[in-house]
Amino acid sequence: MKKSLGPQTIILPAPVLVVGTYDGDGRPNAMTAAWGGICCSRPPCLAVSLRKATYTFGNIIRRRAFTVSIPGRPWVAEADFFGLASGRDTDKFALTGLTPEPALRVDAPIVAEFPLVLECRLLHSIVLGLHTQFIGEIMDVRCEEDCLDERGLPLVAKVDPVAYAPAAGRYYASGSDLGGGHEIGRRFMAGAKEKP
Amino acid sequence: MKKSLGPQTIILPAPVLVVGTYDGDGRPNAMTAAWGGICCSRPPCLAVSLRKATYTFGNIIRRRAFTVSIPGRPWVAEADFFGLASGRDTDKFALTGLTPEPALRVDAPIVAEFPLVLECRLLHSIVLGLHTQFIGEIMDVRCEEDCLDERGLPLVAKVDPVAYAPAAGRYYASGSDLGGGHEIGRRFMAGAKEKP
Repeated sequence: MKKSLGPQTIILPAPVLVVGTYDGDGRPNAMTAAWGGICCSRPPCLAVSLRKATYTFGNIIRRRAFTVSIPGRPWVAEADFFGLASGRDTDKFALTGLTPEPALRVDAPIVAEFPLVLECRLLHSIVLGLHTQFIGEIMDVRCEEDCLDERGLPLVAKVDPVAYAPAAGRYYASGSDLGGGHEIGRRFMAGAKEKP
Repeated sequence: MKKSLGPQTIILPAPVLVVGTYDGDGRPNAMTAAWGGICCSRPPCLAVSLRKATYTFGNIIRRRAFTVSIPGRPWVAEADFFGLASGRDTDKFALTGLTPEPALRVDAPIVAEFPLVLECRLLHSIVLGLHTQFIGEIMDVRCEEDCLDERGLPLVAKVDPVAYAPAAGRYYASGSDLGGGHEIGRRFMAGAKEKP
């Protein structure tokens, strides 16, 4: 039996996206956001939604660039802090001991310690309400070499990404491998036609 | 040492969103998408990106409504199948034995067996390239009662949502609880100012 919770922002899993930008003085900042994800395959684009009150908001508008660094499990407290404090008054890198490193393709910093990073140039900003959605073209993805499988693709078990549960407000770890996409569903395909 | 993977659509975790719609004849359909997530808190909105070639695309345009049903781990193969087959030629509910049930607030079906569902009315459709982003206002969230905590909020351990790893193309389960949001990062807050 389902219970109505009302019009809430609940999705499972939500990602933990650490958005890297430079401010007007060139100081690196990082802010954690849970509202975002991939939004287009061609051109490859990522969306992240931010409130106008955040320091990162103005930084993205000014430099038209941002990065997303994906924290592994060892950095979940740092990622939570990046979502708590404001870069307007606080050097969040200094307080956590994490290292800002210039992105290679865009004018924004990455979190050097995090295993997986995306470098984006701003394509669109869409005002939706309290949040504005920034859509960035993914110019490059970089991953720690020891987190790649034999095909050179990021392995969940190695990147060990964390997820967020909105409403309940809990972080959680990645679990076991459940099988291959476009593979485990084939057992229902008898009599079915494939998607165009 | 990080290795460049080029401009790819990789994010960890990506959600597994089963998008429910009615077609022109009122037949229920469900399609799985990994490009999407919450995109605004006020009004509460969810974004899901679809290719124009999909059957669901026309259904959403026509009825200006869709649902997102979140599969728990027992239904990962069914969710994969919903992403493989096209509803144009296939009754995906019949082939999997899952039950379409009318949403209560919008003109679209949910997957009755899945533990968490969002009911959305279409607010915006934004052409980004290969994918068009559909932004829906969340009119209601409903969750199985036995998946709620004592505050009435969805528990990850009970909903047991699955995630997707793009590129590698693997599904994976949820893992252990890592702590509270706006809690576990407080240990870095000495000398820092909170976000507005």
